Amino acid sequence: MGSSLKVVGLGPGDSALLTPQAQKAITDADVIVGYTLYVDLVPEELKEGKELVSTGMMGEMARCEKAIEIALSGKSTVVVCSGDPGIYAMSGLIYELAEEHLDTLEIEVVAGIPALSAASALLGAPLMHDFAVISLSDLLTEWDIIEKRLKAAAEADFVIVLYNPKSKRRDWQIGKALEIVGTVRDAGTPVGLVKSAYRKEQEVKVFSLNSFDIEQVDMLSTIIIGNSTTRMIGQNIVTPRGYLKKYRK
Amino acid sequence: MGSSLKVVGLGPGDSALLTPQAQKAITDADVIVGYTLYVDLVPEELKEGKELVSTGMMGEMARCEKAIEIALSGKSTVVVCSGDPGIYAMSGLIYELAEEHLDTLEIEVVAGIPALSAASALLGAPLMHDFAVISLSDLLTEWDIIEKRLKAAAEADFVIVLYNPKSKRRDWQIGKALEIVGTVRDAGTPVGLVKSAYRKEQEVKVFSLNSFDIEQVDMLSTIIIGNSTTRMIGQNIVTPRGYLKKYRK
Repeated sequence: MGSSLKVVGLGPGDSALLTPQAQKAITDADVIVGYTLYVDLVPEELKEGKELVSTGMMGEMARCEKAIEIALSGKSTVVVCSGDPGIYAMSGLIYELAEEHLDTLEIEVVAGIPALSAASALLGAPLMHDFAVISLSDLLTEWDIIEKRLKAAAEADFVIVLYNPKSKRRDWQIGKALEIVGTVRDAGTPVGLVKSAYRKEQEVKVFSLNSFDIEQVDMLSTIIIGNSTTRMIGQNIVTPRGYLKKYRK
Repeated sequence: MGSSLKVVGLGPGDSALLTPQAQKAITDADVIVGYTLYVDLVPEELKEGKELVSTGMMGEMARCEKAIEIALSGKSTVVVCSGDPGIYAMSGLIYELAEEHLDTLEIEVVAGIPALSAASALLGAPLMHDFAVISLSDLLTEWDIIEKRLKAAAEADFVIVLYNPKSKRRDWQIGKALEIVGTVRDAGTPVGLVKSAYRKEQEVKVFSLNSFDIEQVDMLSTIIIGNSTTRMIGQNIVTPRGYLKKYRK
């Protein structure tokens, strides 16, 4: 073991949500690698004196290969991701691409507050019961598989968290997803939309399933669809765990 | 608005994983309410000069009612939870019990690193693709519903995260859950067991689905079952997102 590569979660982006463990990992590193937007999210004081490799135009594969190459050269390296690096982010690809180097490269994943937790906190308490997390990006996954999972999650009454609902080139998936869920779930089911959680552009909106405005969804959105028991309490989406039903019959 | 009640996530328990936002919420409070074990997890320096209401023997309902009562009396109050307060924890019950007080009581949820993120980070990268989160506790949920969700998640090839797999009085559910998943998933599917993540008693173990040792599961365990694509890379459980399949055909 000589080389160190850490995949670090920045959380939503506000430094108030960056864990001390993540701060320390960045502070201890020689090099910070990441998509430009994410490197920008790293607090300035943590970047001082570091070599920054921000890769706006580079794809995920090239970025991870670059990070591994730098770490193997002996420089202590962090790859920064928004949210949690373990949820639809870079930790998996780092392990896959570094497979032949595991004897000499020490890889560590440093968890961050995931988008699902940030969205949930801003919406109230929608994730109090079983939930399914589904990415609507069909760039790497066939749409048939995504559709099968949407149906299964809807029919088994999971609360559903949607990641990657839309991008410049993917605009119809979110409408289709809501249509699938709508075939088995009430039209009035609360649906929460959180954009740019804990950043200055933050927006938090609540719709019902049949009034959801897909025009408002962007690349930085997370969507949470309630299950059959989810209801509004004031402005908050709450999925009861079942205490009141059991103890106040 | 006069009274403030915050439901604060401590994360796994190590203060290195406690966000600055959560630290500040605790520092700003007059009173800390929580299950004894969770109040113990709050760093000593944050507890200095605070009124502590730790409720070892009190049930969740009584604890939340107490916290709401204290907050309504004008004392700034935090309820502390391990992990994320929004995932199988106290934020939902707080909203339910405070429903009639929302005009005067300001409630905020402060996210924490959830158990699923902590377990994922320690196991490698098992949550790189769609996953379902299921609690095996049938105290508040009928087992039929849990079983239905296990089947649906298994059949739709979700990675599966199990919360509350076992307790003193619930010992058969984990075996049954693995049996259900085993009817549709390969015997060799990697299954990760993480106990007391980021605490000194931490244990991280990897099994295959047909060799999983349920005797090793305890109340503080989180279990992650891979999907059909999940594989071992070194000692790490990794679910590929699909980059290599797409770009290295």
